Amino acid sequence: MKDHTLVVLVRDRPGVLNRIVSMFRRRGYNIASLTVGHAEQAGISRLTLVVESADVEQVAKQLYGLVDVLKVDDVTDSAVVEREMVLVRVTAPQSSRAKLMELAESFAYRIADIDHETMMLEMTGTPGKIDSLIDGIRPFGIVEMMRTGRITMVRGDRGN
Amino acid sequence: MKDHTLVVLVRDRPGVLNRIVSMFRRRGYNIASLTVGHAEQAGISRLTLVVESADVEQVAKQLYGLVDVLKVDDVTDSAVVEREMVLVRVTAPQSSRAKLMELAESFAYRIADIDHETMMLEMTGTPGKIDSLIDGIRPFGIVEMMRTGRITMVRGDRGN
Repeated sequence: MKDHTLVVLVRDRPGVLNRIVSMFRRRGYNIASLTVGHAEQAGISRLTLVVESADVEQVAKQLYGLVDVLKVDDVTDSAVVEREMVLVRVTAPQSSRAKLMELAESFAYRIADIDHETMMLEMTGTPGKIDSLIDGIRPFGIVEMMRTGRITMVRGDRGN
Repeated sequence: MKDHTLVVLVRDRPGVLNRIVSMFRRRGYNIASLTVGHAEQAGISRLTLVVESADVEQVAKQLYGLVDVLKVDDVTDSAVVEREMVLVRVTAPQSSRAKLMELAESFAYRIADIDHETMMLEMTGTPGKIDSLIDGIRPFGIVEMMRTGRITMVRGDRGN
């Protein structure tokens, strides 16, 4: 089944996330990624939902049926900017530090924290670029990792 | 009521997010922010949950009671690295572009996309820093905004 990316505008009310997640669960749609944050207007949030489904129109229709859901856009086939952020703590004995600092340049990560035995790296990019970073630093030993899930915004001049 | 930040490790199974969000809803705990992404092990996700509650121990206990919840850490009073990402599209006629490019330096944002009438800015920072950016660019006219919600990781040498 194809992954579809939906951008969903919702009223920032208790229960709205519950309604969306419950509907997906009930209908058997699998959520591959869900990210939610404030939108441009106060009281409104915007979600990026990546869902595995053969019938995305049905998913969108079900979403529209939920209280406090204002707008649903299927951006799967649009030109978009897609970003994810990761914080990852790697094992970093003195002997690995120079190498990790050097890799910071090619992978474009920042060093967010450092202690006696580890370094915390911070990186923003496409989900694919973040996967590459993780593959690149895995040999050092990943202690802890946290990703935000992706946010997706359609590029300008839509339809022009 | 105080905002508490919980970092929660869960098995990446259908229904786990539903269980968490439903439990919060049922108990009347308000979720101020929820961010979920892959953790260091395959099949495991890590959530950052910001919840308004007078009794965070009760919240943690309830979370531990849910299927597929592996670990709950209250990091509210810990030394942490806290990050959020935003994509924001602003109105950018020719007359504003130089100013927006100039502000990119002081606010440390990148320009992710540009078209005839708008620019899409990309920024990573603490939630407070992102609020400042948004205040700073609001006069230009915000067309569209999407935030990831925060991810939080405890700094190194805990307890040492």
